[in-house]
Amino acid sequence: MSGNALPPHVAAVAPELAYRLLNFGPTVLLSVAHAGRRNVMAAAWNVPLEFKPPRVAVVLDKSTLTRELLLQAGTLVIQVPGAALAETTFAAGSCSGHDLPAGADKLVHCGMPVFEPEMAPAPLVAGCVAWLACRRIAEPHMEQAYDLFVFDVTAAWADSRAFSGGRYRALDEIPAALRPVHHLGAGLFWSPGHAIQAQPARPRT
Amino acid sequence: MSGNALPPHVAAVAPELAYRLLNFGPTVLLSVAHAGRRNVMAAAWNVPLEFKPPRVAVVLDKSTLTRELLLQAGTLVIQVPGAALAETTFAAGSCSGHDLPAGADKLVHCGMPVFEPEMAPAPLVAGCVAWLACRRIAEPHMEQAYDLFVFDVTAAWADSRAFSGGRYRALDEIPAALRPVHHLGAGLFWSPGHAIQAQPARPRT
Repeated sequence: MSGNALPPHVAAVAPELAYRLLNFGPTVLLSVAHAGRRNVMAAAWNVPLEFKPPRVAVVLDKSTLTRELLLQAGTLVIQVPGAALAETTFAAGSCSGHDLPAGADKLVHCGMPVFEPEMAPAPLVAGCVAWLACRRIAEPHMEQAYDLFVFDVTAAWADSRAFSGGRYRALDEIPAALRPVHHLGAGLFWSPGHAIQAQPARPRT
Repeated sequence: MSGNALPPHVAAVAPELAYRLLNFGPTVLLSVAHAGRRNVMAAAWNVPLEFKPPRVAVVLDKSTLTRELLLQAGTLVIQVPGAALAETTFAAGSCSGHDLPAGADKLVHCGMPVFEPEMAPAPLVAGCVAWLACRRIAEPHMEQAYDLFVFDVTAAWADSRAFSGGRYRALDEIPAALRPVHHLGAGLFWSPGHAIQAQPARPRT
């Protein structure tokens, strides 16, 4: 799959709701493109920062090609893989774009089809359940001292089979293959299997 | 429960392994104590920053009492509630220590028993599965601009029924009540129910 049409089920999400896509701590994929080069990496270390303006942060090690391309492009895409992509996500997290032969494309190497809707600053990995287009806010000290990069979210999309009406669907409505994953380490992921609805606190007497 | 003895099943974890306690993005509770005042809050927005030295970051809104006490104490505890504490965690996230009557203790208000082992800079909430003692690294710009606080992890503990030998146990070995939770919003939590073990990538021919 490629091209700039939205795949079936994929719809735009208001950037102000982007934090909801990441609020529960899923492991994500980062894609980046600059001057004809593209890359992708896995990142468990991501966090929402602000509702409005919509902002997020991601840890990007100094050794990564993604960081190198981001510093040139100023933009990247954060996306939430579903369980069907866990193996591919681990593979993306297990090698660096720097280690591939010259001219190789890690998205191709990892077998990730992509699409590129309007407003997307980098390819979106097909089969994910949510995508956030992000613009870097330059914070050289944070980037150097903690490898932490801060972003404004400029656009977002989600697969309506997983996220609809501004929130994730009830867990039992989401096909298992589209449920997000959480990386514990060494290729072990957990995917949600139980939903718990807490009730609003009652005033104490 | 209170006092400085470790409850049954709770054991120290090397701080260098602390990132593993948070790597998969659980929603956490933050506890803090200074000069006889204590507080607790919920925080979905947390992220590991570094393996060695062990570092983590947490978003703390300017309105929180936890932030106020942290800025005085310089320390707090990040802890991972199990599913049995989801309701209590949501309650802690639904009111501010600032809103309680003068002299009230939010840990008591929310019905959270605690214990305080040696090395703990604040009470540890009983029934959690992991606890990280944290010391603030002052980063005034990040704190002011993004509400983001950076910490060194100085000590850690875990419930051995959930985390043992330096990693979380196999999911089916962890009692459902002790499985972490991920907050989506409005009191809805997901708890892991499926484990996926990805295989190391095979070299491409």
